[in-house]
Amino acid sequence: MKRRNFLRTAGLLALSAAAVPEKAIPFFQKDAALSGKSAAAFPEKPFPFSRKGLAMDFEPYPLELKHVFTVASYSRTATPGVQVRVGYEGLVGYGEASMPPYLGETVDSVVAFLSKVDLSRFSDPCALEEILAYVDAIGPGNNAAKAAVDIALHDLVGKLLGAPWWKIWGLDKKRAPLTTYTIGIDTPEQMKLKTREVEGRFRMLKVKVGLPGDRENIRAVRQVTSLPLAVDANQGWKDPAFALDMVHWLKEQGVVLVEQPLPKEDIDGMAWLAERSPLPIIADESVKRLDDVRRIAGACHGINIKLMKSTGMREAWKMLNLARALGLKVMVGCMTETSCAVSAAAQLSPAADYADLDGNLLIANDRFRGVLVEDGRLVLNDRPGLGLTRL
Amino acid sequence: MKRRNFLRTAGLLALSAAAVPEKAIPFFQKDAALSGKSAAAFPEKPFPFSRKGLAMDFEPYPLELKHVFTVASYSRTATPGVQVRVGYEGLVGYGEASMPPYLGETVDSVVAFLSKVDLSRFSDPCALEEILAYVDAIGPGNNAAKAAVDIALHDLVGKLLGAPWWKIWGLDKKRAPLTTYTIGIDTPEQMKLKTREVEGRFRMLKVKVGLPGDRENIRAVRQVTSLPLAVDANQGWKDPAFALDMVHWLKEQGVVLVEQPLPKEDIDGMAWLAERSPLPIIADESVKRLDDVRRIAGACHGINIKLMKSTGMREAWKMLNLARALGLKVMVGCMTETSCAVSAAAQLSPAADYADLDGNLLIANDRFRGVLVEDGRLVLNDRPGLGLTRL
Repeated sequence: MKRRNFLRTAGLLALSAAAVPEKAIPFFQKDAALSGKSAAAFPEKPFPFSRKGLAMDFEPYPLELKHVFTVASYSRTATPGVQVRVGYEGLVGYGEASMPPYLGETVDSVVAFLSKVDLSRFSDPCALEEILAYVDAIGPGNNAAKAAVDIALHDLVGKLLGAPWWKIWGLDKKRAPLTTYTIGIDTPEQMKLKTREVEGRFRMLKVKVGLPGDRENIRAVRQVTSLPLAVDANQGWKDPAFALDMVHWLKEQGVVLVEQPLPKEDIDGMAWLAERSPLPIIADESVKRLDDVRRIAGACHGINIKLMKSTGMREAWKMLNLARALGLKVMVGCMTETSCAVSAAAQLSPAADYADLDGNLLIANDRFRGVLVEDGRLVLNDRPGLGLTRL
Repeated sequence: MKRRNFLRTAGLLALSAAAVPEKAIPFFQKDAALSGKSAAAFPEKPFPFSRKGLAMDFEPYPLELKHVFTVASYSRTATPGVQVRVGYEGLVGYGEASMPPYLGETVDSVVAFLSKVDLSRFSDPCALEEILAYVDAIGPGNNAAKAAVDIALHDLVGKLLGAPWWKIWGLDKKRAPLTTYTIGIDTPEQMKLKTREVEGRFRMLKVKVGLPGDRENIRAVRQVTSLPLAVDANQGWKDPAFALDMVHWLKEQGVVLVEQPLPKEDIDGMAWLAERSPLPIIADESVKRLDDVRRIAGACHGINIKLMKSTGMREAWKMLNLARALGLKVMVGCMTETSCAVSAAAQLSPAADYADLDGNLLIANDRFRGVLVEDGRLVLNDRPGLGLTRL
């Protein structure tokens, strides 16, 4: 019986907590997952609902980038990802993990973590506090894997409650902010080209900096747009005094905020810079989870909350409220993600000051339709959970 | 037309934001509200739903105490209260303000505040962040009046979502804690009597202290019960060194926590005491709203969150999460309240360490049935919103 169930769902789907032989799941192979060539749309398999209660399955799903993406520390053309489903009484919630290489998670590590998650022990999927505490306690780290479970559960719970999360959180979707669109580091000419490509669609851009050509690149972008710019140095500047010079120069170029100027460990350097900076300094890599917010509160003007760092929506919402209570600005950001995780993050956005939720716009193989961008602003819909439609 | 509407609802009900002549609402008279003699059950009037959207009405409702209630600073036999209803598309949510005299609000002040609240400007009652920010901005203070609106809106929104708030907040009702039952200050013999009266119904008691007879009173209670005791000094001790002596002595008597030992302004004294105390020191009067939590975090071991201080459930939930993030224990408490506000506070309780939610048990004229106490433990139900039934 167990074997028949397994065969019915074999191939792409792995039942939660079951010891699944690797060969049954082709996307376990790291090469395939990272090549970006196997990312044809998967037709959705029926969810293997359990009569006992909550069930979960998952499959690797590499995210193909439209452009080569370069930031201060690396370039890439694909991002490994794992998609998760949770099901309960006929309803399915979707989640995903996205694993940009610098965060240390891989398809293997996510699959190994998800294989340990046994949701069948919980009878009420709404008991998120308890369920997510259990998931968190399975092991340290694995933030993207944890986020995938959290996001899928939120989608499910929203469907059970019949409401989108922005509404469950008491927010007003009309207050969703503008989102920036990210221009990665490239040649000045390519950066101009990319900036022109999105002309008229966004009202604020984020430019990646942190390499020697920063000034040339910013000048190039400035030649083709008058939009306000955010810059993200991704830890690329090593010296606070140099960073302060750059920030002053950037302000003259119409830059409105600076993200993670210094190495993530250099909290003292960031505090020194934040005290002197004419632009808001937003911590990103220096802040992952709730515990980090308090530690960093005196050292920056705001934080960038991303679900793949925070372990998901529940902790992200706590981080947002803690940041507010500590007087910090809040940006909601994302990794390269499908509209699943981006729509999850977007649920928070009406409570945020800034959003950088363009991850789904950068990939060629999105599987969902959810939050949209209209005239540069995030547009949330009224559908329950994350508001997703499978493409 | 307006006049006809008004006449239909006149007597006890005042339409939100309408300038209502005092004579139309007999419970505006302070004497009647405070006498405790006019508290016969009101049959419920039909709610004056507005086709425009949200509507609100309210009526004074004095709470009759079963016993004379004495704490360190005063005695009383009734507590003034105001009940609030909000209505939207055929659903009604209930809230209330309770105004123990020492907090400075009165029936007059609450009614004056509520008369300024115009909910008809909001089309979506679920947008609690925005609506409650508007209510809060109407004027400073008025925390109980604000709580009444917040509680009624939460009841309504829970009904719209079809779920109780413990579920919307992702909690598990099975984790609801024990509640203490409060023994007010009286003669040692009376305190023994009251303790015996509740024998077998509670598994933890809270004894009010802070007057010269403390040791005698605690000894008296100890003669008739072996239950763990919390004590609440209600700012009654004036000197930190004296308080520390008392705390040491109380520990020997099987006391497990001490609430608000010192005057609310003496944060330094509380910090000194908390550093040395063998029992957890829980701040109550020193902490009202979200902003206070951060200020007090280093000066106590935990905080007592009460809706009448916090302006309601939404800020209470933020306070609870902030307290957790700052490493504080959380008690959820109440004033003298009907099961309406007590059930509202109880929605938080599965996330709290301690509960002192006995306010509804102390009054003779409860109008609702909601959270129950079974074998000393809070029992939440599955009904939407606050889980209330009108009696």
